[in-house]
Amino acid sequence: MTRDELRALLERVRAGTLDVAEAARSLEALPFAELGYAKVDHHRTLRLGFPEVVLGQGKSAEQIVGIARRLIEAGENVLVTRVAETLAAAVQKELPALAYAPLARVAPLGPPPVAPGPSAPVAVVTAGTSDIPVAEEALETLRMCGVPAVRVFDVGVAGLHRLLARLDVLTAAPAAIVVAGMEGALPSVVGGLVATPIVAVPTSVGYGTALGGITALFGMLTSCASGITVVNIDNGFGAAAAVVRMLRARSAA
Amino acid sequence: MTRDELRALLERVRAGTLDVAEAARSLEALPFAELGYAKVDHHRTLRLGFPEVVLGQGKSAEQIVGIARRLIEAGENVLVTRVAETLAAAVQKELPALAYAPLARVAPLGPPPVAPGPSAPVAVVTAGTSDIPVAEEALETLRMCGVPAVRVFDVGVAGLHRLLARLDVLTAAPAAIVVAGMEGALPSVVGGLVATPIVAVPTSVGYGTALGGITALFGMLTSCASGITVVNIDNGFGAAAAVVRMLRARSAA
Amino acid sequence: MTRDELRALLERVRAGTLDVAEAARSLEALPFAELGYAKVDHHRTLRLGFPEVVLGQGKSAEQIVGIARRLIEAGENVLVTRVAETLAAAVQKELPALAYAPLARVAPLGPPPVAPGPSAPVAVVTAGTSDIPVAEEALETLRMCGVPAVRVFDVGVAGLHRLLARLDVLTAAPAAIVVAGMEGALPSVVGGLVATPIVAVPTSVGYGTALGGITALFGMLTSCASGITVVNIDNGFGAAAAVVRMLRARSAA
Amino acid sequence: MTRDELRALLERVRAGTLDVAEAARSLEALPFAELGYAKVDHHRTLRLGFPEVVLGQGKSAEQIVGIARRLIEAGENVLVTRVAETLAAAVQKELPALAYAPLARVAPLGPPPVAPGPSAPVAVVTAGTSDIPVAEEALETLRMCGVPAVRVFDVGVAGLHRLLARLDVLTAAPAAIVVAGMEGALPSVVGGLVATPIVAVPTSVGYGTALGGITALFGMLTSCASGITVVNIDNGFGAAAAVVRMLRARSAA
Amino acid sequence: MTRDELRALLERVRAGTLDVAEAARSLEALPFAELGYAKVDHHRTLRLGFPEVVLGQGKSAEQIVGIARRLIEAGENVLVTRVAETLAAAVQKELPALAYAPLARVAPLGPPPVAPGPSAPVAVVTAGTSDIPVAEEALETLRMCGVPAVRVFDVGVAGLHRLLARLDVLTAAPAAIVVAGMEGALPSVVGGLVATPIVAVPTSVGYGTALGGITALFGMLTSCASGITVVNIDNGFGAAAAVVRMLRARSAA
Amino acid sequence: MTRDELRALLERVRAGTLDVAEAARSLEALPFAELGYAKVDHHRTLRLGFPEVVLGQGKSAEQIVGIARRLIEAGENVLVTRVAETLAAAVQKELPALAYAPLARVAPLGPPPVAPGPSAPVAVVTAGTSDIPVAEEALETLRMCGVPAVRVFDVGVAGLHRLLARLDVLTAAPAAIVVAGMEGALPSVVGGLVATPIVAVPTSVGYGTALGGITALFGMLTSCASGITVVNIDNGFGAAAAVVRMLRARSAA
Amino acid sequence: MTRDELRALLERVRAGTLDVAEAARSLEALPFAELGYAKVDHHRTLRLGFPEVVLGQGKSAEQIVGIARRLIEAGENVLVTRVAETLAAAVQKELPALAYAPLARVAPLGPPPVAPGPSAPVAVVTAGTSDIPVAEEALETLRMCGVPAVRVFDVGVAGLHRLLARLDVLTAAPAAIVVAGMEGALPSVVGGLVATPIVAVPTSVGYGTALGGITALFGMLTSCASGITVVNIDNGFGAAAAVVRMLRARSAA
Amino acid sequence: MTRDELRALLERVRAGTLDVAEAARSLEALPFAELGYAKVDHHRTLRLGFPEVVLGQGKSAEQIVGIARRLIEAGENVLVTRVAETLAAAVQKELPALAYAPLARVAPLGPPPVAPGPSAPVAVVTAGTSDIPVAEEALETLRMCGVPAVRVFDVGVAGLHRLLARLDVLTAAPAAIVVAGMEGALPSVVGGLVATPIVAVPTSVGYGTALGGITALFGMLTSCASGITVVNIDNGFGAAAAVVRMLRARSAA
Repeated sequence: MTRDELRALLERVRAGTLDVAEAARSLEALPFAELGYAKVDHHRTLRLGFPEVVLGQGKSAEQIVGIARRLIEAGENVLVTRVAETLAAAVQKELPALAYAPLARVAPLGPPPVAPGPSAPVAVVTAGTSDIPVAEEALETLRMCGVPAVRVFDVGVAGLHRLLARLDVLTAAPAAIVVAGMEGALPSVVGGLVATPIVAVPTSVGYGTALGGITALFGMLTSCASGITVVNIDNGFGAAAAVVRMLRARSAA
Repeated sequence: MTRDELRALLERVRAGTLDVAEAARSLEALPFAELGYAKVDHHRTLRLGFPEVVLGQGKSAEQIVGIARRLIEAGENVLVTRVAETLAAAVQKELPALAYAPLARVAPLGPPPVAPGPSAPVAVVTAGTSDIPVAEEALETLRMCGVPAVRVFDVGVAGLHRLLARLDVLTAAPAAIVVAGMEGALPSVVGGLVATPIVAVPTSVGYGTALGGITALFGMLTSCASGITVVNIDNGFGAAAAVVRMLRARSAA
Repeated sequence: MTRDELRALLERVRAGTLDVAEAARSLEALPFAELGYAKVDHHRTLRLGFPEVVLGQGKSAEQIVGIARRLIEAGENVLVTRVAETLAAAVQKELPALAYAPLARVAPLGPPPVAPGPSAPVAVVTAGTSDIPVAEEALETLRMCGVPAVRVFDVGVAGLHRLLARLDVLTAAPAAIVVAGMEGALPSVVGGLVATPIVAVPTSVGYGTALGGITALFGMLTSCASGITVVNIDNGFGAAAAVVRMLRARSAA
Repeated sequence: MTRDELRALLERVRAGTLDVAEAARSLEALPFAELGYAKVDHHRTLRLGFPEVVLGQGKSAEQIVGIARRLIEAGENVLVTRVAETLAAAVQKELPALAYAPLARVAPLGPPPVAPGPSAPVAVVTAGTSDIPVAEEALETLRMCGVPAVRVFDVGVAGLHRLLARLDVLTAAPAAIVVAGMEGALPSVVGGLVATPIVAVPTSVGYGTALGGITALFGMLTSCASGITVVNIDNGFGAAAAVVRMLRARSAA
Repeated sequence: MTRDELRALLERVRAGTLDVAEAARSLEALPFAELGYAKVDHHRTLRLGFPEVVLGQGKSAEQIVGIARRLIEAGENVLVTRVAETLAAAVQKELPALAYAPLARVAPLGPPPVAPGPSAPVAVVTAGTSDIPVAEEALETLRMCGVPAVRVFDVGVAGLHRLLARLDVLTAAPAAIVVAGMEGALPSVVGGLVATPIVAVPTSVGYGTALGGITALFGMLTSCASGITVVNIDNGFGAAAAVVRMLRARSAA
Repeated sequence: MTRDELRALLERVRAGTLDVAEAARSLEALPFAELGYAKVDHHRTLRLGFPEVVLGQGKSAEQIVGIARRLIEAGENVLVTRVAETLAAAVQKELPALAYAPLARVAPLGPPPVAPGPSAPVAVVTAGTSDIPVAEEALETLRMCGVPAVRVFDVGVAGLHRLLARLDVLTAAPAAIVVAGMEGALPSVVGGLVATPIVAVPTSVGYGTALGGITALFGMLTSCASGITVVNIDNGFGAAAAVVRMLRARSAA
Repeated sequence: MTRDELRALLERVRAGTLDVAEAARSLEALPFAELGYAKVDHHRTLRLGFPEVVLGQGKSAEQIVGIARRLIEAGENVLVTRVAETLAAAVQKELPALAYAPLARVAPLGPPPVAPGPSAPVAVVTAGTSDIPVAEEALETLRMCGVPAVRVFDVGVAGLHRLLARLDVLTAAPAAIVVAGMEGALPSVVGGLVATPIVAVPTSVGYGTALGGITALFGMLTSCASGITVVNIDNGFGAAAAVVRMLRARSAA
Repeated sequence: MTRDELRALLERVRAGTLDVAEAARSLEALPFAELGYAKVDHHRTLRLGFPEVVLGQGKSAEQIVGIARRLIEAGENVLVTRVAETLAAAVQKELPALAYAPLARVAPLGPPPVAPGPSAPVAVVTAGTSDIPVAEEALETLRMCGVPAVRVFDVGVAGLHRLLARLDVLTAAPAAIVVAGMEGALPSVVGGLVATPIVAVPTSVGYGTALGGITALFGMLTSCASGITVVNIDNGFGAAAAVVRMLRARSAA
């Protein structure tokens, strides 16, 4: 509820066209749909410029179906993330319109917006082949938000020339998502080479001292290159959401 | 060295106006100044749109003076971060033009650029009073990059109405830096309220289970609000640098 | 054994109506039933105002049946917690009177006490849908202790208005159990809004830096809101037990 | 602002006795005083039944004086916690009315309320002599909230008979704060003996594997006794605040 | 090889009854049997007064059979620890004489020595029912070394009277093995009550902050009771081995 | 209070020679002296065969003096551990009879018992020179308990022959305390060479991955040599106390 | 591209025999093959003297086949590491020439080079039988690089004489790979006995405080023996690769 | 004692020219000097090809003087590491011949050997200026062992061209020591560019998530570049010692 809407509502109270009790109820809470086990937030899209995203992990098929149906009724797109293949199949039985991207493990529903977007595509970069599923989660999220993107895969620091060959793409991009496991050094190197906004995503790729992604995460946070920001381990969705925030703010300016 | 410069250089070789040996040297390395203990990187500004920033912590006054002098000779601005008061005094003896902001513990040198910047100021938000030094480091960095900013201090989640009263500033900002120690919950709340790009900075404020900022850091990375990015503990400089990357990319578009 | 009982026993010794050897035995140990692998504590209910609760995890069906039978013989109610579905089925074969709540993973036996309880129900709050199983463990425990409760689910900090709409319930409650995973910020926000006693329960919901609930736990312990207390990760039972202690003390006053 | 106040305000708008713009301002934010570096929250007492408490650690004497003065002007009591002796002296120069309890390291200002309180005193228990400063922080906080309390010090589990001799005090108390460092076993033992609500406070007493209080904290959270709740390491204030929440809820019932 | 044996050997060299080359070989290495993947140490029994113990975990059935056969040929008893049920079955096919204790997960071979041992049995104590498998590993090891022992199970600190009822057994024992998971408080309490040598064994029983036994381990190491020693998590074998060292030293004195 | 004493007391009640009220008081608590900040435990010596030991760390000089005086009045020896040099000096001003061993940082008071002890001395072994202060704390404790000991210092695994040269001392000892920092490998090696009971003490000697002693501690607990027990980091006192328990049990047998 | 090749290329530009555009392309990137999901690096062998090694873990059979085929086409040997048995079978269906060593879990393809190598074999040492798979990974890697090696297995510090019997092999070796789990003490002991270059490999063998290899790793890094270097937990391949670097440098000298 | 020496000794026993008792003594122990607090190892140089190195940290000036004097008497060079400036001064009062390198914090005594060494110098590389002290410790150690070295400082991954300009030095070096703090990415990049043996040294440079060097350490161990080995945090001495082992093995071949 914006400041202008608030004043309009109060004017209606003063004019007597709105009942006090009703106005009080409106002011006490913004609208959402109550499902018992979930409160579907119809205003988030409005507030954040983003479709409702459902974290599939830890939810039953019934819960996902229930939430998705309510969103569909409200005319919104849905993106369910971290959906194992069997869970996706169970949900699709009830909601055949739901698509499923197995590599990214996301289930989108509804056509992505026709978005003019930025002129150059966002670069989604991975250090190795094993980091690709996380990158694909980011790519699917960007696609659902109408943001064009380009893949720059397997350019880790152990073979720098592979990265240097793609510098033009990185320089031109309005933002880069850099996905790396193991020691997570790639964002530091990219950040030292280009001035592009960089969102680094540590992955759980590696063993032993990789500590399930903690080493890559801490390496990225401690980066000697300035101005790199980081999201949670394996959080391709979050990195894409951060880029969407940037691009929305940009087109809003 | 851009692709165009590379071609131009090779054309000069072909034309015989540039010696092969000299061209080889040019191609082997981009220029930097060798001080023995440091290699001052004259091209970073060009590459990253950023003044050379010197991490003061762990350097001697002599080293800082040496690096700063070389940068001044090259006509660049300097920003020394994490400078204790006594170190700053020692450096200022040799370089009286160096300023010092004691709360932010940074020592800037040279006038900030006259920058029209974005129309609305960047919001620098803190959860508590003790988080202010980190916020000031961010503010000084933004100032040295010509980016206008506004303070929104002491609006932590234990008194939500203080935050809600400033939502308009946050909504209008092209980006928000949200600084919080202890449990680090503020970025989640802000991220659920506004669509602005958010860079979260955990601080080492707190005791016991605050773990010197690790709890705030992990809380921010695990945030239930989408698209929040995070930098290192107490890294006000890094958050500002990330925002500068965003705004440069934006004005470059 | 209270001070009064002790004196009465000694009086009987003095009066010669109680044998010295027998008195010595009474004084040496309070009574419990010895099963070999477990010592069933018939006095705990008396001491703590609480039915015997059996942690199902790590026990065999045989052990659970044995312990439960002894308690039933003593006329006590039983609550077995952390019982996987297959374990519950195995126990129920021997003890058909045992019920099972699959979401809460608890197996209660015996009717809950008819308790007038406090006038307003205890609020059991969750940040998300995935936190519900832990909340249900708390709810089943409260039910077995005769304490009325109300569900306030999916009101996490990423959509604050959902929480604000239920503030009246939280304000009226004699205590609130606030269950949250990921960054665990909800108790801080609730604690800043209401004066109700709050028991925070971190859950293992989340991935990466959620660290299996440690991040939520540390966030809650480091909360900037005053007077919030915390129990172990996923310990819905423990939170309910803490609330029962509060309400018993209250009705005893 | 309660629901009734909200309706009253809206009635005044309807009646034309309150200007729309003014009403909008009132609704946009609850009142607080802006100091630049801090926002003093005049409504917290109202909301939480608690004086404003200032965490001294990490604040300058000037900041503490500024915040305290604003609170005094508003007629509120002040409690500054974690104040080192030299900081207290600096603040007292400007605010001679401020008292200082060196063992508890707190600086209270203003007379504690004349409170009838519960009939029996709250028990504040320590395992060892070194845990006393944390217990004293709790005791000072209780005193400032008008809650009577009794000291049960140095009754750690290595000499159980010392504890058993004080069981009557613990049984009678409306709540017990149990403070222990090292392995933190005391709350488990107390929790197995009495039905009283227990808030456990781990302390940083110990060395090596005591890990600065983490071991005691985790031991308390993992307690085999039911219904024990825990606060942050060394957080005597927080434990007292939790007890105040309990007792306020009780007297409000 | 003792000092006396060494002199004897050298005397034989001087007397010419022992060849120099042969003597050199004797001095270069103590004897062991080489299996390629293992070196079976025939002198360990001699050196340590202990049968060869084989850690089953991480070894194949073939490897265990090979090692055990060589030991049997040398006339030694064998104790294989941490043997899963299926692994034991595979080994028993080849070595039918091998017994298997499923609760303790150990596979002993050969009759335990007829040992008069100490007059009173070693006490093996557990805090809860779930700690029993670890206690049984200790009991089987003691049995194979001819040491009598007595079970004192399920006497955790949440019901102290259960422990107090068995104090006489603990006081009489030449040593006590105290097994506890969760917060691991039992050894502290026992250590404060009796002067018996105590070997504490933390177990991985518990969840969340139990950290797989680390919390119990650190609690025991930080114990406020003097002179408690600790072994690895779930290491019932190691605790028994430590007690055997004590009792052997004692009978050797 | 032993079982026999209990019966005697009850007989006196029956005989009418002991008042009921007085008997009740006797039964309610074992005797200790109440100092307010400490409860001096006059029965511990009786119970544990050990002088009262006071952990100096975290206590004021006044508290130490108060506790020591009460113990002296009761005719007991005192051992204050972890006493910094300045603290010792402050205590000695009030208690000139208190001695001080600066390397061990312990302050003993009273003559050690004339103890026949075991025939061979306990071996106190260190890996390096920097581990000596911890070894000296153990040696002082043994001395105060009348246990003879021998130093075997600086025999770490990087120069094995130094250790092999002293094997006879280790073999003869009734127990060995093995003190090692850094990787803490010495107890494993000693444990593989001799059958003596071994108490391993990790020290905080080392830097980086030594983690303040945690690495040595975990290495010792994970030792591939059987039957090694471990105490807290730098806990020379605890290791000695464990050995005293062993030797007392032995002489009691 | 070497410096000489660079000059040659530039000379060809000057001579007009090489087109500027083509030269620019050559300089912009070193050649590699683009597979979409991987960039196969044909120059790594040249640069590092090493076959392309593919980490099998986290890759699909299709991806491994695709990468291996491209390498085979280029005439290079392939070594796929960390290949589970089922994955190996799936790859072998498409690439029957691929071998598989199940203990080492590596899949080599192509004949190892006929290498004269160093005169003495590299020693590959293990502390226990369970460490052998990691040692075999190192041995397979050495074999594929044409480096002779010798097994010295099961010589852990709990039975030192087994190690001392093989000292001549260790002394003669040009390098030793020492593989140890649990407390990881073996490299310290070996490092104190021989001057050979030592690469220590911690393994995840052990339980509880072994922490999946972290304890062995930290023990090795903190070793009191000088000049020991360490690789990641279970990283037999990496240790072999380090030795290959040493021997190549040596033969290049 | 080599095998040949052993046979010679035995021949002398047989020949009667060596007394049995004396021979036994020789065989029982290799010689070292006993100082009480330290055992000076005169054979280490022989065994390891290395001067005796004394870790200064944690030793008193008296202890260092005592050890050094004994080594000087034996005609050996000494290298004391981790010597704070004041400690060095105290030692120099007694031993004026001791030099001191304040940046490296090492105190060498005696002329370094005149060593022809390898033809090319060892490269000692740092990521930043703050890593130099650790590099200097390595350089001083190499110098004392007669190994020539070259500095390649401040070539961190945020400015890759600085590193690329020095590739020829790295390629020619018989080994490279790569010193880096913060995220520790430099060894990965160097390891991908050159085939030289690389010893990586993490430093404690950085703050927050740098975790005092743990992040750099884990990053290096998890490196995606093959064959990199790692030493302890800030352990410049250890890295140099590892290189000396390599070069000695090489010249011995």
